[in-house]
Amino acid sequence: METAVLLIQCPDQQGIVARVSDCIFQHKGNIINSDQYTTDPFGGRFFMRVEFSFSEGKVDKQAFESRWGVIATELGAAWSIHYAPRKPRMGVLVSKFDHCLVDLFYRQRSRELPVEIPFVISNHPDLAETAAAHGVPFHHVPFTAETQKENEETILERVRGATDFLVLARFMRILSGDFLKAYGKDVINIHHSFLPSFKGADPYRQAYNRGVKVIGATAHFATAELDEGPIIEQVVERVSHKDNITELKRKGRALEKQALANAVLAYIQHRVIRYENKTVVFV
Amino acid sequence: METAVLLIQCPDQQGIVARVSDCIFQHKGNIINSDQYTTDPFGGRFFMRVEFSFSEGKVDKQAFESRWGVIATELGAAWSIHYAPRKPRMGVLVSKFDHCLVDLFYRQRSRELPVEIPFVISNHPDLAETAAAHGVPFHHVPFTAETQKENEETILERVRGATDFLVLARFMRILSGDFLKAYGKDVINIHHSFLPSFKGADPYRQAYNRGVKVIGATAHFATAELDEGPIIEQVVERVSHKDNITELKRKGRALEKQALANAVLAYIQHRVIRYENKTVVFV
Amino acid sequence: METAVLLIQCPDQQGIVARVSDCIFQHKGNIINSDQYTTDPFGGRFFMRVEFSFSEGKVDKQAFESRWGVIATELGAAWSIHYAPRKPRMGVLVSKFDHCLVDLFYRQRSRELPVEIPFVISNHPDLAETAAAHGVPFHHVPFTAETQKENEETILERVRGATDFLVLARFMRILSGDFLKAYGKDVINIHHSFLPSFKGADPYRQAYNRGVKVIGATAHFATAELDEGPIIEQVVERVSHKDNITELKRKGRALEKQALANAVLAYIQHRVIRYENKTVVFV
Amino acid sequence: METAVLLIQCPDQQGIVARVSDCIFQHKGNIINSDQYTTDPFGGRFFMRVEFSFSEGKVDKQAFESRWGVIATELGAAWSIHYAPRKPRMGVLVSKFDHCLVDLFYRQRSRELPVEIPFVISNHPDLAETAAAHGVPFHHVPFTAETQKENEETILERVRGATDFLVLARFMRILSGDFLKAYGKDVINIHHSFLPSFKGADPYRQAYNRGVKVIGATAHFATAELDEGPIIEQVVERVSHKDNITELKRKGRALEKQALANAVLAYIQHRVIRYENKTVVFV
Repeated sequence: METAVLLIQCPDQQGIVARVSDCIFQHKGNIINSDQYTTDPFGGRFFMRVEFSFSEGKVDKQAFESRWGVIATELGAAWSIHYAPRKPRMGVLVSKFDHCLVDLFYRQRSRELPVEIPFVISNHPDLAETAAAHGVPFHHVPFTAETQKENEETILERVRGATDFLVLARFMRILSGDFLKAYGKDVINIHHSFLPSFKGADPYRQAYNRGVKVIGATAHFATAELDEGPIIEQVVERVSHKDNITELKRKGRALEKQALANAVLAYIQHRVIRYENKTVVFV
Repeated sequence: METAVLLIQCPDQQGIVARVSDCIFQHKGNIINSDQYTTDPFGGRFFMRVEFSFSEGKVDKQAFESRWGVIATELGAAWSIHYAPRKPRMGVLVSKFDHCLVDLFYRQRSRELPVEIPFVISNHPDLAETAAAHGVPFHHVPFTAETQKENEETILERVRGATDFLVLARFMRILSGDFLKAYGKDVINIHHSFLPSFKGADPYRQAYNRGVKVIGATAHFATAELDEGPIIEQVVERVSHKDNITELKRKGRALEKQALANAVLAYIQHRVIRYENKTVVFV
Repeated sequence: METAVLLIQCPDQQGIVARVSDCIFQHKGNIINSDQYTTDPFGGRFFMRVEFSFSEGKVDKQAFESRWGVIATELGAAWSIHYAPRKPRMGVLVSKFDHCLVDLFYRQRSRELPVEIPFVISNHPDLAETAAAHGVPFHHVPFTAETQKENEETILERVRGATDFLVLARFMRILSGDFLKAYGKDVINIHHSFLPSFKGADPYRQAYNRGVKVIGATAHFATAELDEGPIIEQVVERVSHKDNITELKRKGRALEKQALANAVLAYIQHRVIRYENKTVVFV
Repeated sequence: METAVLLIQCPDQQGIVARVSDCIFQHKGNIINSDQYTTDPFGGRFFMRVEFSFSEGKVDKQAFESRWGVIATELGAAWSIHYAPRKPRMGVLVSKFDHCLVDLFYRQRSRELPVEIPFVISNHPDLAETAAAHGVPFHHVPFTAETQKENEETILERVRGATDFLVLARFMRILSGDFLKAYGKDVINIHHSFLPSFKGADPYRQAYNRGVKVIGATAHFATAELDEGPIIEQVVERVSHKDNITELKRKGRALEKQALANAVLAYIQHRVIRYENKTVVFV
């Protein structure tokens, strides 16, 4: 069975759901799941995720998209449609820490995350062996403040045509706004704190010094503003005065892996819609 | 603005959402929120909650319900419709513990729970003063194993016409299946354990003896089978060997209040649909 | 049975525990609980909480304190001793929100929090009735930016001799460093965010705008730096894009009540030791 | 620096802590951490974990143990002492699921779990390659109801001298009481439910059918009674009606890995004391 996910956002107005579901119905689609959200019933913004199958053989995608496109224009809607079961290509950038990388490898191999990982890129050579052990190509691209423009160009050449989105799995360098713009697709970052607390460097040390009683990890879309992009997922855990920085990092690794995996899964299931600097995540 | 919530469940089939939304659209309704769930896209059961407003003055409810009734019959759907802002009448049964009762009173008074509380019924006189302090009538109905049939009859006379649903806020007696059948409306109970663990009496002692590391509370619909009804909400908290029974009870009271309040709120917002021995809770 | 809690902090060094326990043992004390923590086994800071009873009638407190004082001086220790069951006097400051106040009243009345509440002070008259309903004196002390010095003087006169510590239960004014210094005892504040995120005004709006997926509440000691004092307790809960500001506030109220109650309970059980800008909270 | 952990349990009585700390002090030990717990200050059971270092070169272990042994006898104490940094040998038993195994391998290799894994034993050949990829010997020992006695004998020969404890990392067979007795050391099992809910087979299906709103995983000591052994750690996560069994299993895998890793870490740090059918876990 072929299925599709249609993501929509537009100004809230009367009759949207009726028109969407009617359009699917007319093209022999059967809605499997439908989620919607309106920021404000009076003049707010409307979001919808609708997953549907085609009950009578292969749907005429072109006909559906053409008809839907007309309606979308009338609604003033931004939209995208995603046909399963195409596996998206996830490029992974890392530095020296391997816990998120190994976790992504495991979840990909066990089919929990149905993605392809075309390669791993790192600004350090350390994880070459880890990538090799999982049969994934590894590219070492040095990355320094002085040569950033050139380094990003090198990365861009690698990722542009070969990936559908990027994951920064504890990549300890900051990609410029120019890079993000040039790449043009989504970049998901894992930040090792409960944002907006403890932006920037060494958040576990910041957390330790502040004496917080709960720590967290945040998966978010990377934007030109460091650690300010739309949050997709956050997970947290209690800590106490007994947790020194080493122990915070140990607990934090579990949080980072979980937040990142949850975010990537939601993303590749097309459950995430960006708007303003936020996300709607349909669960 | 008047709004309505329509709850539906039926066998999954093509075109349900289109027909529902079209029917609402035809009667000048504007969908504010819509949630749906299918247990299985192939031959499963379909559930929908749709909240809508009427943009052009007062809707013709009769016309809508009449038209929708025809569609529902065609779909084989069980359904109910709830017009806001009618406040449901919540009868409360208690015994001696007051924490859930006081919490419900507070949330009702602060408008967090938009309900009316016509009275409190108890098998003990202890909480009469608490009810009085909140200006709510209190009825003491003794309840013993020997006189249960008669006691339940007394309660039934009180609650039948005067309440829309009942909450057992640490009512320590078991209402019979006959009572529940005769009452005919929903009864929400708070059980002071993480069901199905520790059914029956003194669950905190059971939890202490078993040495669990997490405790919980469960709000569920009361059924003829003790502690076996459909679960609406569960909340949990970590404990350790240091928590003796007194401390488990202290932590548990917070859980009980929270689970019950969450369940009642979801229920009165018409977010809960019962099926089999489970619930769909749209959030 | 009379019990005592001894709180100690000093530079870590050999033999502290032996000397403390020996001193208690020599005075016929029986240790009920003992907790200790060292920030770093090599030259760190040492903290200890030891709870003990006196097995043979009334202890000679003076003899014990005298002997212990000598040892403490040798260890370079700061310490305090607290004899149960004296109930501390908790002054409460509020503004217009009543949820934390009502929760404190309930927990006090049900003996969960063994404190006396000599009075409630507010910069608004709104909660006078709430205090009256619980039989607690209420003092309205207006508080404006222009008259702050004088207002704080008025409060100071009320609280100085009559309270052992203060709780700011959603008191929406900022007490000056001068006030805190003049009062000289501990002041516990509840901040309605997961600090250090969203300091200052309207944190739920800040959280909504940032699009976080988890919210929290923080109980901390008030210091001259707004929202920067030592954190005692934090509790958190998941939220989603569906939670508008009203809903965040509803969920937040439960968090605020819980964080504050946990913090006050730990505090009055003498489980909290301040150091640097942090706390050790023995559980 | 060499450190030691001393674990003690005995009837509560006056002066225990003083005698323990004095004995350590006399042998030039410096207490790094000390935790204690009494089930009941009046005639309860006393537990203590004390971690200490020897400040003046190598301690005379024999002298310490000899002196301490005399005191322990007087106190009626059961005790054990553990000198760091000896790495315990952890034998792992698995069946077909690899998530816990891979997670243990990763945490071991990254030094988060300082253990040796001498081999993996499985009743299925499936994970041979996984073990090989991590450089760990793999032994396939078929295990059927008919041949259980003989199969357990085979396992016993492998593990008896070669391991300090065993971990059942989703080993889907039940080891007999005879086996556990013959092995004589601790066996830690991960059960994929929030015990005591859903003992036995297919707990995620049981959880789905019961319609719970929270699932969990439980790490416990294996005993002759299936799923009834002392609980070491439990972790939980919210679920909803949307989570079908596949999704419960996905969420559950994260819980299983976390509960097991936490339990093993606590165990090898000698933070776990068994008593009755429970555990004291010093954190």
